Amino acid sequence: MMESPFGKHILAEYFECECTYLDSEAAIRNLMLEAASRSGATIVGNIFHHFSPQGVSGVVVIAESHLAIHTWPEFRYASADLFTCGTRVDPWIGFEYLKEKLQSKKWVSKEITRGTAEEELASSACGGKAVSG
Amino acid sequence: MMESPFGKHILAEYFECECTYLDSEAAIRNLMLEAASRSGATIVGNIFHHFSPQGVSGVVVIAESHLAIHTWPEFRYASADLFTCGTRVDPWIGFEYLKEKLQSKKWVSKEITRGTAEEELASSACGGKAVSG
Repeated sequence: MMESPFGKHILAEYFECECTYLDSEAAIRNLMLEAASRSGATIVGNIFHHFSPQGVSGVVVIAESHLAIHTWPEFRYASADLFTCGTRVDPWIGFEYLKEKLQSKKWVSKEITRGTAEEELASSACGGKAVSG
Repeated sequence: MMESPFGKHILAEYFECECTYLDSEAAIRNLMLEAASRSGATIVGNIFHHFSPQGVSGVVVIAESHLAIHTWPEFRYASADLFTCGTRVDPWIGFEYLKEKLQSKKWVSKEITRGTAEEELASSACGGKAVSG
């Protein structure tokens, strides 16, 4: 079962990164899995793709939503999304971990609230699971 | 090669959805692949997961970034991300398609600009590919 639909979504732009990881699918996958673990997330799957001639895209699906990354080695730039629902996971730990590992010298981050509190949604349900009372 | 690092990211919340698709991994996958195609995106991979007892999460990785969805049938709610780089893809087509298919009666959308123009990044590069002149 997924976490509460109320979540935090960090949109991160990492500029002026070191080149070490940016073009390696394996390295970026490891970074993202580690970012998910450190944030306290439960990993349910992942998919990564290396572009020709360069660049990596990938997503870690977690029980609490997802973490995504896209890298542009030609611009020493990576964008990342850390979207986590519920209250047990802290996406900012993942954000800091990625910043440190990518050695980004300039970054921008935004936190957006996703969904809404369960109480506000409690009157809606599929499959006869509506809350009564 | 991935598109320009300058992109649009739509964060969508679909409330009061019909139940038809929300708990079906196959249906949600098809919707998302179709949303990507209709937006003009080039699909490079996808991953979907059905949660127990209910809910689906999934991501379509595209050459222009990604489309992601998380559904909560118990709240008739789905969140979606449509993140597309470059100028050839229109994520709003995907947004409208999902809204229509999910039959959402109430929705919230936000468009966020990601990355930055290539010109501003041109002085940075990995692997000796720096732009000169």
